[in-house]
Amino acid sequence: MHSQYYVEQEKYEKTINRKNKKSDDYNGMYDRYVYPVLTREHIPVFWRFDLDEKTNPFFMERLGVNAVFNSGAIEMDGKYYLIARVEGYDRKSFFAVAESDSPVEGFRFWDCPVIFPDTCKKETNVYDIRLTKHEDGYIYGVFCSESKDEDSHDLSAAVAEAGIVRTKDLKNWERLNNLKTLQSPQQRNVVLHPEFVNGKYMFYTRPMDGFIETGSGGGIGVGFCDDITNAVIDEEIITSRRKYHTITEAKNGAGAVPIKTDRGWIHIAHGVRNTAAGLRYVIYVFATDLQNPAKVIAEPSGYYIAPMGEERVGDVSNVVFTNGAIVTKDGNVYIYYASSDTRLHVAETTLDRLIDYTFNTPQDPLRSVDCVLQRCELIRKNLDILKNNT
Amino acid sequence: MHSQYYVEQEKYEKTINRKNKKSDDYNGMYDRYVYPVLTREHIPVFWRFDLDEKTNPFFMERLGVNAVFNSGAIEMDGKYYLIARVEGYDRKSFFAVAESDSPVEGFRFWDCPVIFPDTCKKETNVYDIRLTKHEDGYIYGVFCSESKDEDSHDLSAAVAEAGIVRTKDLKNWERLNNLKTLQSPQQRNVVLHPEFVNGKYMFYTRPMDGFIETGSGGGIGVGFCDDITNAVIDEEIITSRRKYHTITEAKNGAGAVPIKTDRGWIHIAHGVRNTAAGLRYVIYVFATDLQNPAKVIAEPSGYYIAPMGEERVGDVSNVVFTNGAIVTKDGNVYIYYASSDTRLHVAETTLDRLIDYTFNTPQDPLRSVDCVLQRCELIRKNLDILKNNT
Repeated sequence: MHSQYYVEQEKYEKTINRKNKKSDDYNGMYDRYVYPVLTREHIPVFWRFDLDEKTNPFFMERLGVNAVFNSGAIEMDGKYYLIARVEGYDRKSFFAVAESDSPVEGFRFWDCPVIFPDTCKKETNVYDIRLTKHEDGYIYGVFCSESKDEDSHDLSAAVAEAGIVRTKDLKNWERLNNLKTLQSPQQRNVVLHPEFVNGKYMFYTRPMDGFIETGSGGGIGVGFCDDITNAVIDEEIITSRRKYHTITEAKNGAGAVPIKTDRGWIHIAHGVRNTAAGLRYVIYVFATDLQNPAKVIAEPSGYYIAPMGEERVGDVSNVVFTNGAIVTKDGNVYIYYASSDTRLHVAETTLDRLIDYTFNTPQDPLRSVDCVLQRCELIRKNLDILKNNT
Repeated sequence: MHSQYYVEQEKYEKTINRKNKKSDDYNGMYDRYVYPVLTREHIPVFWRFDLDEKTNPFFMERLGVNAVFNSGAIEMDGKYYLIARVEGYDRKSFFAVAESDSPVEGFRFWDCPVIFPDTCKKETNVYDIRLTKHEDGYIYGVFCSESKDEDSHDLSAAVAEAGIVRTKDLKNWERLNNLKTLQSPQQRNVVLHPEFVNGKYMFYTRPMDGFIETGSGGGIGVGFCDDITNAVIDEEIITSRRKYHTITEAKNGAGAVPIKTDRGWIHIAHGVRNTAAGLRYVIYVFATDLQNPAKVIAEPSGYYIAPMGEERVGDVSNVVFTNGAIVTKDGNVYIYYASSDTRLHVAETTLDRLIDYTFNTPQDPLRSVDCVLQRCELIRKNLDILKNNT
């Protein structure tokens, strides 16, 4: 073996075995961890280098990995699994399972990436899988399946659909037909709801603006279908709406699979606004009704997580994005979020804190003057407390 | 002299005399050096300040320099020369020669920037010169010559052409007529091939999409002309093509002057894709046939250099770009690449490694599923090697 193999292998083991720790930053809403849980340094050496000295005399990367980010997440039998979006130097993404005994460190990729049955021959790229433990007994993966737009003169124009796979062990995967949404020619950020609703499968979608009866407002949609093996959605109704001059102004989309609580379904989604330096992606939270998961019942104001420090810069800067969260039996919540399309982080909270945040954070009053009044009310109340406290 | 002069002069000398060292990052393809080889700190103090205490009592910058980046490169008589793009606070670029005995450190600008004969009166800006040692005995400089588009209502609309100069000593420059490409109204990233091809001068160009018979594909073009003093190209044929969902999806262009090897001409070019945060520029490699330098014979998958660490951010973030490389007699290759339109770096490799990379890196199979299969094949081969190794 080339001597550099041992150097690279040592770097790799050091990365995997690095102990993580909570950040000193405090907001009470959640704790960030200092080190990302998955990065390109977490990719095994034998995924990148040809270890054969005859065919790779210079010990050169033959298939480099550019980034590891947007990851589905699931807990099974006390182990934590992330299905990350891994992007090669060639820009194509694929999925790979990383496993750990801890939710915040020690994630190690299985020997081989995931291979789904190649049933969609025009598909060029896949990414951003959401893992749903459905009450039908399967674990579903819903991901973005992207193909070249053959009708466009623009070489970079793509058509995006929602691909659907299912498994029971994360190893053997069955690929179902892509989701069809009759009113929307394209879909990204589709998430399968974990329970039947009126006996039907329910998906969170993102309807195209032009196709929504509410005009150019839009937002996160909801649609139903009977047959998951040939999922077709006709009507999409809007749940969390895009709103002017909020963190969802330009776009929003579903993120992690909704979390069921006594008070309602809690959604950890993303919102996008435009800036002079491109789009800015943040993570926000809302809740929907237990009986009617399309009906929004709580909308805490503003963002939940925004890019901070090193998270700000990467292949696509100014982005935080989540497509996976894990709730443990003892009520801890781990939100896996990627920064700037480059690496994957974790934020930790508890179900109690998340519920409190969702239902007790004031709503956005939507106008600067009302936001100031809202804040001044808080300040005055606090000044009284501080006065009485001395 | 104002006392601050001595402070600034000391900083300048410290920058110039800083020893460079290879980065710890390893890919086997090349070594990055830790420090940039040219930055705005490399600009002489007397280019920026008026040293006359009477006319500059506050010792104030009178003509600041904003950035030093995209640089042509050449070796002559054992010395290394970079002709950098130097950009003033006023946003105009100009060229300046920096010289060193070493290819990786110690570059010092000559006393005065380069002045070309002012034969093109409408020209507003010049940048990104490529230096070609041509077999006709001259050193040619081909650069972007940009003028205001007088036909457009958009104040910022520009017309770009390829300017051509030649010299034998980098001091005395003769300016020739700008290149005319009859099928393409604009040109950027034009490079002169170092040898005659069928007795003609050969240029690498970037034809406009709309003007190419191949439709919206496009890519790096090739054209021929008889008379370099009045260079006119009619037909442009495509060599390295743009491709959907690769690192050249949005644009590509020639970079350094092609390097002649036993196996073919090796090209170090750039590819561009779009992101939610603007364009991302990376450097890639391909090879063309020795007899027919327009014919692509090797296309290693993905990028060769992408922005990393501090390179990611600058005046135009998420960019690496090269327009100069030097091959030494002993087979070392120095690739001068700028990051984010702000500073100039060097990566070092050898001709043997570059050839191995170019001809033995697998080709991009263009679909995610095929990329995974390609990687799994590498992984399985490696797992066998690892098993036998223990």
